[in-house]
Amino acid sequence: MLRSHNCGELNIKDIDKKVVLCGWVQKSRDLGGMTFIDLRDRYGITQLVFNMNTDAELCKKARKIGREYVIKAKGIVVERSNKNKNMPTGEIEIIVNDLEILNESKVPPFTIEDNTDGGEALRMKYRYLDLRRNVNKNNLVLRHKMAMEIRNYLNAADFLEIETPFLIKSTPEGARDFVVPSRMNTGKFYALPQSPQTFKQLLMIAGLDRYYQIVRCFRDEDLRADRQPEFTQIDCEMSFVEQEDILNIFEGLAKHLFKTIKNIDADTFPRITFADAMKYYGSDKPDIRFDMKFVELNDVMQGKGFKVFDDAEIVVGICAENCGSYSRKQLDKLTDFVKKPQVGAKGLVYIKCNDDGTFKSSVDKFYSQEDLKIVAEKTNAKPGDLVLILSGETEHTRKALCELRLEMGNRLGLRDPEKFAPLWVTDFPLFEWSEDKQRFLAKHHPFTAPKPEDLDLLEKDKKNVRSNAYDLVINGNEIGGGSIRIHDKNLQKRMFRALGFTEEQAQQQFGFLMNAFEYGAPPHGGIAFGFDRWCAVLSGSESIRDFIAFPKNNSGRDIMIDSPSSISDEQLDELNLKNIEKE
Amino acid sequence: MLRSHNCGELNIKDIDKKVVLCGWVQKSRDLGGMTFIDLRDRYGITQLVFNMNTDAELCKKARKIGREYVIKAKGIVVERSNKNKNMPTGEIEIIVNDLEILNESKVPPFTIEDNTDGGEALRMKYRYLDLRRNVNKNNLVLRHKMAMEIRNYLNAADFLEIETPFLIKSTPEGARDFVVPSRMNTGKFYALPQSPQTFKQLLMIAGLDRYYQIVRCFRDEDLRADRQPEFTQIDCEMSFVEQEDILNIFEGLAKHLFKTIKNIDADTFPRITFADAMKYYGSDKPDIRFDMKFVELNDVMQGKGFKVFDDAEIVVGICAENCGSYSRKQLDKLTDFVKKPQVGAKGLVYIKCNDDGTFKSSVDKFYSQEDLKIVAEKTNAKPGDLVLILSGETEHTRKALCELRLEMGNRLGLRDPEKFAPLWVTDFPLFEWSEDKQRFLAKHHPFTAPKPEDLDLLEKDKKNVRSNAYDLVINGNEIGGGSIRIHDKNLQKRMFRALGFTEEQAQQQFGFLMNAFEYGAPPHGGIAFGFDRWCAVLSGSESIRDFIAFPKNNSGRDIMIDSPSSISDEQLDELNLKNIEKE
Repeated sequence: MLRSHNCGELNIKDIDKKVVLCGWVQKSRDLGGMTFIDLRDRYGITQLVFNMNTDAELCKKARKIGREYVIKAKGIVVERSNKNKNMPTGEIEIIVNDLEILNESKVPPFTIEDNTDGGEALRMKYRYLDLRRNVNKNNLVLRHKMAMEIRNYLNAADFLEIETPFLIKSTPEGARDFVVPSRMNTGKFYALPQSPQTFKQLLMIAGLDRYYQIVRCFRDEDLRADRQPEFTQIDCEMSFVEQEDILNIFEGLAKHLFKTIKNIDADTFPRITFADAMKYYGSDKPDIRFDMKFVELNDVMQGKGFKVFDDAEIVVGICAENCGSYSRKQLDKLTDFVKKPQVGAKGLVYIKCNDDGTFKSSVDKFYSQEDLKIVAEKTNAKPGDLVLILSGETEHTRKALCELRLEMGNRLGLRDPEKFAPLWVTDFPLFEWSEDKQRFLAKHHPFTAPKPEDLDLLEKDKKNVRSNAYDLVINGNEIGGGSIRIHDKNLQKRMFRALGFTEEQAQQQFGFLMNAFEYGAPPHGGIAFGFDRWCAVLSGSESIRDFIAFPKNNSGRDIMIDSPSSISDEQLDELNLKNIEKE
Repeated sequence: MLRSHNCGELNIKDIDKKVVLCGWVQKSRDLGGMTFIDLRDRYGITQLVFNMNTDAELCKKARKIGREYVIKAKGIVVERSNKNKNMPTGEIEIIVNDLEILNESKVPPFTIEDNTDGGEALRMKYRYLDLRRNVNKNNLVLRHKMAMEIRNYLNAADFLEIETPFLIKSTPEGARDFVVPSRMNTGKFYALPQSPQTFKQLLMIAGLDRYYQIVRCFRDEDLRADRQPEFTQIDCEMSFVEQEDILNIFEGLAKHLFKTIKNIDADTFPRITFADAMKYYGSDKPDIRFDMKFVELNDVMQGKGFKVFDDAEIVVGICAENCGSYSRKQLDKLTDFVKKPQVGAKGLVYIKCNDDGTFKSSVDKFYSQEDLKIVAEKTNAKPGDLVLILSGETEHTRKALCELRLEMGNRLGLRDPEKFAPLWVTDFPLFEWSEDKQRFLAKHHPFTAPKPEDLDLLEKDKKNVRSNAYDLVINGNEIGGGSIRIHDKNLQKRMFRALGFTEEQAQQQFGFLMNAFEYGAPPHGGIAFGFDRWCAVLSGSESIRDFIAFPKNNSGRDIMIDSPSSISDEQLDELNLKNIEKE
C-alpha cells in the first residue's frame, strides 16, 4: 500500500507514530512560518503541517501544491495545540518530513465543498469531481450499506440471490421496452427487462422457493423529473405463502433497515385499503407523518343553495390546525395554489373557527353558524383552526385535496424528513381504465391474482375487481409493491382474456409462462422495491438521482460520457439496420 | 405460510409433531394397503404415508396424484420402521391426515431425477423443470453462497459496492458491443457495457478508493461453446496500491472462497511470469495440478542430421511418467491427437525409457543412446517413462505441446476436479499483434500500465513491452485478470498514440476519461473475475452454462422464452430504424 493509514482514522492514541498518508488537497493555508494542508480521502480529513524553520525546502514544495492535487506525505503524528473537536482527527496533525506529488490537478470547475458553487449541468458533466463532495460520497456509502443489510436480512431468511437474464424478449404490454438488435439472429431483437417478473415466477415453478435479486431494470418512458431510464429494483418472490406472510417478511426487512441504517425501532406498520387511502388521503401513497384526514361533507353542505356544492359529486374538507388566523392574502394564496393546473381545483372554500366559538367562511351567505358548527365537529376543528373544502368530481377532487393537504403539511412543518411513517396499502384494484387505449389494463401486471371473492366480477364489472396486491409506502413515497400471483393456468387464461388478449397473443407473448403453469406451479407471490427511491427516502431526500453514482439527465443522456451517441455505419450494417430520416 | 416445515428439516427429534408440508411429488409407490409419496422441495425430500386401513378415501385420493403435482399435506411425524440413513429425513415419515392438491402437473417431458432422460435442447426449453433437478438447484445454491462470501470478504475489507450504468457508450476498441437504439435521441445509440472499466476508474478518480460490483457484462461475439453473450463479472478496483497489494487482497478472496465453499485451506499461490508460463506450459493459463513441465531440447536434438528438428525454431519435450510401456497403437493415437487441426503439430517424436536403462525412440537412426540419455536426464525421465517431443515454430509448437500435456494429464488421471491448483500469471505483454487488423492492439485494454522499466520500448519495440497485468488461474482456467492502470494523462496519451489512435479519436472515444485525468487521478489498479467460470471451476465443472439460471444456447438464443424475436413495426418506427434485407 502506498499509505499506512487513511485520512480519517488517526487520533490522539496515535501520537508519535510514523505514518504515510495519501489523498487529495482539500485546502492549504500559508501562515508565514507554517503551511497547513487539509488532506482528504474517502475516510476523512487530516491536517498536514510543514514548518519553514525545520525544513524550508519541503515547506516551499508544499506551498506550490494546488487544490485537488494527489499527494503522499510521510510524517509523525503530533498533538495539535489548536484542537478541532468537530472532526475525528481534530486532535492531531502530521508533521511532514517527506512529500511526493502523485498527480497534479487543474483547478476544478467548481469547489469540492459541501456547499459548492457548481450548477447541476456542470456537476453532472464532472460527476467524478462531484462525487468527491461529502454529500454525494455519503449517499453512495449509504446505498452500499443498505444493499448489504438487505442481503444480510434476506440471506438469513433463506432467500437465494439468483441472477436472471438481461437480454430477454419484448412484450407490448406495459411500458415501452428498450430493445437490442441481435446480429446473430438477423432482424430479431432482444429487450432489456422492465423487471424480472416472469423469470422470478419461473424460479418459483422451478421450486426455488425464496428468491431475491438487487437488479437493474429498464423502461423507455418519456422521462419526468426524477425518473431514470435505468433503475435498480430489489426483486423478491416466495412460494407457499399468502399475502400476510409477504407483508410480515418484508415489513421485517423495512424494520431491519430502519434499525441498521437509521437506528430507529419502528412500530408495526399500519395498513389501509386502497379504497380507504383514496377516501381519507386522496392518494394511494399517503403521507401519514401527519393526520389531516379527509372528511366528506356532502350531507351538511349540500341542499343549502350553494350551487357549486349542490352540483358536486363530492364535498370534502380537511382541518388545518391553528390556521384560523390566516389573512386574506394567505387564503388567496391557497386558492391560487389549488387552482394551479397541476392541482386543478376550481376554487377553495374555507371556514375559520374563531377563538370565540363563531365561524367565518367564504360562503357565509349559504350556511348558518349552526351548519358551520356541524362541519367543525365533523372535521374535528377547534377554535383557531381552519377548515379547507373542495368539491367536484370525486377522483379529481380527492387528488386536488391531496395536494392541498401536502401543501398544508409543508406549511405547518409536519413533513419532517427525519421522521418516518411507513404503511401498507392493500386491496388495489386489479384493473385500471386507460383513456388512451380505451380499454382496461392490468393496474399492476397481468399475473396479479384477483381476490377470490371478486372473481365473479372479472368479466362483468372489471372496475370493482380487487386484487391481492399491496404497496409499501413511506412518507408519501411508494417504496415497493407486489402481489400474490395467479398460479392456476385457467385463471391466467381468463385474466388474459379479460385484458383483451386473444388466445394467440397470449400464447405468443407469454406462452412459456402459460406452458410452465402446466407443470405444477406452486402458490406464490412477491414484491419489488425501488432501491434508488428507498435510499432517497431514508435520507430524507426527494431526488433519486443523488443516490445513483452515474445518473442520466432528464433527456436520458449521460452528459459526462456523452451518451447515447452515433455508431458507425459498419455497426449498423452488421445489425442489418438503417437509420431513417423523418421529415 | 402454507407449510409449517420444509421437506428437508424433519428428523427423529420431531416425532409426534403435527406438521404441514408443501412440495412436488417426486414419486409415489402404491404397496396395496399403503401408499408412499416422496414429497420434494428445495430443501429435501420427506416421505408421506397413506394407509388404506385407516383412511381409505384419503389413500385413494393420494393414489391419483401424479409426478410433479404440487400438494399440501397435513400429518404427524412418526419414526420409520425401514430407515434410510442416506437422507437427512430418512428416519421419519409423515402419516398424512389431510391432503390438498395445490396444482396439477402434466407428465413432465423428462424425468426430474439426478440422471435424467432429457436431451439438452429439451431441458433448455423447459429450464424451469430442469432447475428442479438437484444438480442444477445445487449449482444455483453454490452460486448464491459464493456471491454472499465474496461480498462478506470485500465488505469487511472496506470495499464499497457501487452500481455503474448499463446504458453507456459504444467504443470500437475491443470486442463488439451490443447497442441499444435511443428513442428520445433520434439516430443515437447506447451500448451495453463489456465491463465497467472506465466507470470504475472514474470512481477511483472520485476518491472512492475501494470499489466492487458483481455485475452483468455483455459481448456480442460469435459464440463458441461455453460462451454467453451476457455473463457476470466480479469487478474490483483500488486506489493507492501497487500490484503486490492487489495480488494479496484478491489471493485472500480466493482463499476465503476455497475455505468457505470447499473447506480447503489453500497455500500461498505460486506466481509465474507470462514468459515462463509460455516457456514451461505453452499457455498463459497453465494447469499446474500436475508438473510435466516443458523442457527445451534444441541443444541435444539439433545438428544430428534429423532435418525436422534441425529446421525447427524449437524442439521441446515433456516426460509422461510410467508411459514407457505404451504400445505402438497407443503411440499412434497420440500422434493422431497432435495432428488434429485444433492441435496442429506435424508429428510426434517419442523416446521410451526402458526398464533396463536403454532407450527406444521413433528417431533412433539419428540419435545415439548417449543422446537419448541426455534427453532423459534433461526431462527428468526415469526408466519406465515416456518422453514426447514436438518441434517447429516456437509459439505454435508450445501451443501444441500444451494440448498434448493436458491430454497426457487427462490420461494419467492427473487433473482431479476435486484438487485445486491456483496460481498468478504476471508480467503479461502490453500489446498483442493482430493479424486481422495488421497492427498492435492492447492485450488487456488501453488503460493498462506498462512496466516502468519497459517504457522506453513503447514506441520502438511494442512486442517486448511488459505490463503490470496479472491473471488468476485455477486448474487451467483463467478466473480473472487485471492490471495497474495508467493514471498519468501524458502516459495515457502516449498509449493511445502507440495503439494508433489519432488525438481526435482518443478524445472522441475516451475524452471523458482523459479529462478526468486532468483533475487528480490517484494511482490505482484492479481486477475482474468471471463469476460464472469461478462457480464452475470450484464445482469441478467445465460448463459455465450449468451455473446460470437461464442461459442462452450457442446461437445466443433463449429457447425457453423464444428470444430474440421480432418486434412490431411501430416499435422500429419509434426508433427511426428500418430492417434491411440482404441478398
